[in-house]
Amino acid sequence: MNRGERLGRDLFERHSGALTKAVAACHARSYFTLFPETPDRHRGGEVAAKAGLAAFQAQLGQAFELEQPGTVARIGHEVSPYTQDPLGIEYPCPDIDALFAAAGAAMGPWASASPQARLGVGMEIVDRLYDRTFEIAQAVMHTAGQSGPMSYAGSGTNALDRGVEALAYAHDAMLDVPPEALWERRFGSTLIRLRKRYRLVPRGVTVCFACATFPTWNAYPAMLASLATGNAVIVKPHPTAILPMALAVRTFREVIAAAGFDTNLVTLCPDTVDEPIGKRLVRHPRTAIVDFTGSARFGAWVEANAHPALCFTETSGVNTVVVESVDALEPVLKSLATTMSLFSAQMCTSPQNVYLPGDGVRHAGGRVAPQEFGEMLAAAIAAIGNDPKRAAPIMAALQSPSTAALIDEFTGHGSQRGRVLLDSAPYAHPDFPRARTRTPLLLEVEAGAQDLYGEERFGPVGFVIRTHDRDDALAQGAADAKHGGGITAFAYSTDGAYLERAVDAYSASGAQLTCNLTGPMPLNFAAAYSDYHVTGMNPAGNATLTDLAFVASRFRITQSREPA
Amino acid sequence: MNRGERLGRDLFERHSGALTKAVAACHARSYFTLFPETPDRHRGGEVAAKAGLAAFQAQLGQAFELEQPGTVARIGHEVSPYTQDPLGIEYPCPDIDALFAAAGAAMGPWASASPQARLGVGMEIVDRLYDRTFEIAQAVMHTAGQSGPMSYAGSGTNALDRGVEALAYAHDAMLDVPPEALWERRFGSTLIRLRKRYRLVPRGVTVCFACATFPTWNAYPAMLASLATGNAVIVKPHPTAILPMALAVRTFREVIAAAGFDTNLVTLCPDTVDEPIGKRLVRHPRTAIVDFTGSARFGAWVEANAHPALCFTETSGVNTVVVESVDALEPVLKSLATTMSLFSAQMCTSPQNVYLPGDGVRHAGGRVAPQEFGEMLAAAIAAIGNDPKRAAPIMAALQSPSTAALIDEFTGHGSQRGRVLLDSAPYAHPDFPRARTRTPLLLEVEAGAQDLYGEERFGPVGFVIRTHDRDDALAQGAADAKHGGGITAFAYSTDGAYLERAVDAYSASGAQLTCNLTGPMPLNFAAAYSDYHVTGMNPAGNATLTDLAFVASRFRITQSREPA
Repeated sequence: MNRGERLGRDLFERHSGALTKAVAACHARSYFTLFPETPDRHRGGEVAAKAGLAAFQAQLGQAFELEQPGTVARIGHEVSPYTQDPLGIEYPCPDIDALFAAAGAAMGPWASASPQARLGVGMEIVDRLYDRTFEIAQAVMHTAGQSGPMSYAGSGTNALDRGVEALAYAHDAMLDVPPEALWERRFGSTLIRLRKRYRLVPRGVTVCFACATFPTWNAYPAMLASLATGNAVIVKPHPTAILPMALAVRTFREVIAAAGFDTNLVTLCPDTVDEPIGKRLVRHPRTAIVDFTGSARFGAWVEANAHPALCFTETSGVNTVVVESVDALEPVLKSLATTMSLFSAQMCTSPQNVYLPGDGVRHAGGRVAPQEFGEMLAAAIAAIGNDPKRAAPIMAALQSPSTAALIDEFTGHGSQRGRVLLDSAPYAHPDFPRARTRTPLLLEVEAGAQDLYGEERFGPVGFVIRTHDRDDALAQGAADAKHGGGITAFAYSTDGAYLERAVDAYSASGAQLTCNLTGPMPLNFAAAYSDYHVTGMNPAGNATLTDLAFVASRFRITQSREPA
Repeated sequence: MNRGERLGRDLFERHSGALTKAVAACHARSYFTLFPETPDRHRGGEVAAKAGLAAFQAQLGQAFELEQPGTVARIGHEVSPYTQDPLGIEYPCPDIDALFAAAGAAMGPWASASPQARLGVGMEIVDRLYDRTFEIAQAVMHTAGQSGPMSYAGSGTNALDRGVEALAYAHDAMLDVPPEALWERRFGSTLIRLRKRYRLVPRGVTVCFACATFPTWNAYPAMLASLATGNAVIVKPHPTAILPMALAVRTFREVIAAAGFDTNLVTLCPDTVDEPIGKRLVRHPRTAIVDFTGSARFGAWVEANAHPALCFTETSGVNTVVVESVDALEPVLKSLATTMSLFSAQMCTSPQNVYLPGDGVRHAGGRVAPQEFGEMLAAAIAAIGNDPKRAAPIMAALQSPSTAALIDEFTGHGSQRGRVLLDSAPYAHPDFPRARTRTPLLLEVEAGAQDLYGEERFGPVGFVIRTHDRDDALAQGAADAKHGGGITAFAYSTDGAYLERAVDAYSASGAQLTCNLTGPMPLNFAAAYSDYHVTGMNPAGNATLTDLAFVASRFRITQSREPA
C-alpha cells in the first residue's frame, strides 16, 4: 500500500463516523449537520474568528500565492460590495493547456486509490475548510456581498454540509461496485470459475464554474463529488468573486498534498470580465465533466455544447408564490417580506413573483383584495428596509453594480405597465457606510406581463401579479416556474385540496414547493441531506444536489476476469 | 389505492423473492439467473416449444396485429437469413406525432404509481416474455440469423436476465429516495418541523433503438429501466429485425393492460431501410431519453444530437486479443477459433484482431512464430467450418447480405496487403439448405494497417497482426481498443506481471479483459448481474449494462414540504 493510500485510509477511519451518519441522513433525508451554524459555536472559538479576519485583511492588496503550474500572468479586479474598494488581490492566471496537462498528470495515483482513501481525503478537506470558515466568510462578504451571518452559515457550514452530502452519495455509488467477485457456473459438464476484478475509473478533468453570489454552496459538492470519484478539478471562479474559491482551492491542495497525492488534482483558473475563458474551458478536449452554476443564458450554452463532456448545471430561478388563503395575514407577510429581502434576493431560491387571486386572499378576518395585499407586503418589506440595523443582516449588499441599474429599469417598467408598490433606495449600512445597498423594489402588474416577470430578475425586484382567480393563480405560477425555471415555490392555502393541487402542479413544473410556512426559518432555506436542490425538469438547471445521478456517472467501471 | 397500483403491488409481492435475489446478485456481481438456459428445462416443456414454433409459423405472411394509435400504413420487408424467403409480415406504421402523443398521455397514472408497482409490472413482463421464449427465439433466428441455441439463450433467457438486472438497479436507485421525511431543527428558539414529501418523476418518452443482430439483449434492459422509472417507451426496431421486438412490445402491452395501466406506455415504431426515421425520433421535441444500439456511425450522431434528451448508447466493438505466451496452444486456439466463429462474429463482443509478438508465442513446448500461430488458428477455424454439423450451431447465418460483400472486399485487401490465412466460403447448413452462410475470413497483416482492422468489420473477418514484440502487441491492442472502441479484450500469458500490465492497459482503454480463458465457455460470454457490458470510455458506447448511472438519471425528484 503506497503512502497516499495509507494516509487516505487513515483519514477515512478518522471521519468514518461522520460519513456514516451523513449516509444515513441522506437515506432518511432527515436533519443532520456536521457543524454548528453560528460563529460562537465554532470549535476554534474567538481565536479562530479573529485569525480569520486577520488573514483576510492581510491578503488585501497582496498577490495570492498558489504554487500551480503554467502561471503566465496575474489578474484580479475584485471590489468589495461593502467598501466599494478594490481588494487589490492578484491571482495566478495559468496557461490553460498547461493546467489541463497538470490536472491530467495528477490523476494517476488518485484514480488508483481506493474509494475509501479518496473519501477520507474529501472528508479531511471539509474539516480543514471548516477551520477556515471565518476567513472564507470574510472573502464571501467582500466579493459576493453576503451578510456576515450568511457568509458564515450559508457559504460556510451549510455549504460544507452540501459537500459532505455529495461525498455520502459518492460513497454509496462507488461502494455499490464490489472490488471483486467469484463467479461460477457450468457450461455443459464443465464448471467455469472466474475471478472478476472491477475498477472504478474517473472520467477525467472536471471544470467547475463557481458563481458570483454563492460560490461555495454549489462548488463544494461538485468539487467533492468529482474528486471523490477520482477526477481532477479545475475551478473557474466568477471574475468578481475569486477569493472564496482561491482560498478553497488552496485548502484542497494542502490536504491533497499532505495525504501524499498530487496537488494539481485541484487548481484555480481565474479570468476577467473582459476576457472570459469559460467557453474555452468547456470545449477543451480534455474536459470530461462540467459543473456549472451561473446565468441561465450561459448555462443553456454549456448544456448544448459540453458534449462529449458530462454536464451538471444550476442556473437561475423564477421562483413563484401563490397566496390563496391564510389564517392570519401578518406572519405570512412577514415571512414573505423577509425572504424576498434576504441577501437582496440574490439567491437562486429567492421568491420573485407573488400570484394573487383577483377576488382577493381569504383570511380568518375576511378577504383582502390583491391590491391591498400587495400594499401590505410592500409595507412589510419597507419595515425592514427602513430600519438599517434590521436591514443590514437581512438585505446585505448588492454583488454587482449592474443590479442597481436593473432596479432602476424595472422601476420604469413598473410605473408604465403597472404600479410601483415599493420604491427601491439605498439603505445606510450601519457598519459599512459605503456599502452598495438597495432595498427591494416591489411592482404590481397584471397577469400576462411575462416579459417582465417570466424570467429571473437577479436582485431585489419583486412582482405582485393579479390573476383571475385562485385556480388561475396556481396555473400561472406553476406555468411560469416550468417555463422560466423555478427552483423553489411557495403556496399558502387553508384548503387542503387546493394545496394538494399545488403539490401536483409544482411537481409537474419541477419546482420544490413549500406550503404554509411562517416563522423564523427563511422560506427558501435549503437543507443539506434533506432538500433536493433543483430538479432538472425546467430551465433552472439539469442537476440535483444531491441525488445518485449527480455522482453515479462521474466514474466508469472497468473489469477483468480470469480463471480462479 | 387505484386498480393499477393494487395490481402492480400484487405483482411486486409475487416477484419480490426473485427481485431480492437479483438485487443481491448485482451487489455481489456473482452468478445468478432466473431462467435455465436450455430449452429442455423450460417450464412449459415440449408443449411450449411446439406452441412457440407454431405461433411463429402462423405469423408468417400475416399482418402483425398491434392495436396502437396512429397507424397510417403497414410496412415490413424482413427476409429470413435461413430460408432467404421474405417473412411476409406487415407491421403497423404509425404517425410519429400521434405515437408520441399517445405515449405521453399514457404516462400519468404510471408516473404516479409507486416504484414497487412499476417494478412488479416489470418483473411480470419478464415472466411473460419467458413464456414466449420459443416464439421470440424463432423470430430472432429468422431475422438476425442466430442459431437456435443462441436465439433461445442469448436472445432469450440471458436477455431477460439483463432486463431483470436493470430492474434491480432501478429498484436500488428509486428506493434510495424515501417517500417522505420528518425534518426538524431550531431556528433561534423556535423548533421548525417540516413534513417533506418526495416524488419520483419520469423524464418522459424514451426512444429505444434495437439492433439487427441481437435486438432483445440490449433492448430489454433499456426498456425495463425506462419503464420501471416511470417513462413511456417507443421501440424503433431495425427494419430487418422487427418481429422479435414486435413480439416483445405486444407482451409488454398485454401485461401493462392487465395491470390496469395504459398500453401505450410501450409502442412499436418500425421503419424501412429506404425511409429511416431514426433521426426524426431522436430530434422529436417529446423525446426525453434515447437508448441506442447499432452502428458506431449513427451512434456517434445520436450522442452528438440527442440533447436535450439523455442518451445511452452501445455501438460496435473493435475487440482485441493479445497472445503472449501459453502453456498449451491447442485449448487457446480452440477457444479463439470457436469464439471468432460464434454467430459468424456478428456480436459486439466478438474478437476481431489477434496481436502477436514478432518473436513468436512462447508455449510449454517452445515458441511458435506468428505466421505459424496464424496458420494454426486458421486451421482451428477451418475445422469448424469444414464440418457443417459443427458449424451450424456455432456460425449460424449472416444477418445481412452486405456482410458477404464485406468479406469479399476484405479477401481482396488481404491478398494485396498481407496474406489470406483462411478463405471464406458458404457452408451447407444441414437444416436450412438455402441459409446465408459464410465461414470466417482470416487475414494476416502487419501492425500499422489500422485502415483495415482499426474499426469494426461487422461479420466473420478476423485479423492476425504481427507486432514487434510482446510489449508492442499489448500496446497496439490496447491502443486500437481505445481508439476504435473495444468492448471485450482477451490476453493470454503465463507471465503474471505481463497480465497485470494488460489489466492496466485495457482498463485504461475501457475494454473488459478476459485472461487465459479456455474451455467450453465462449470467451465473449457476458453474464448478467456480473459482467459490466461497455464502459463508456471509448467509442463502443457511452452506457454500461448495468450500473447505477444507467438508471439513476432516468427519473427526477420533486419535493414539497409543509409544517408537520
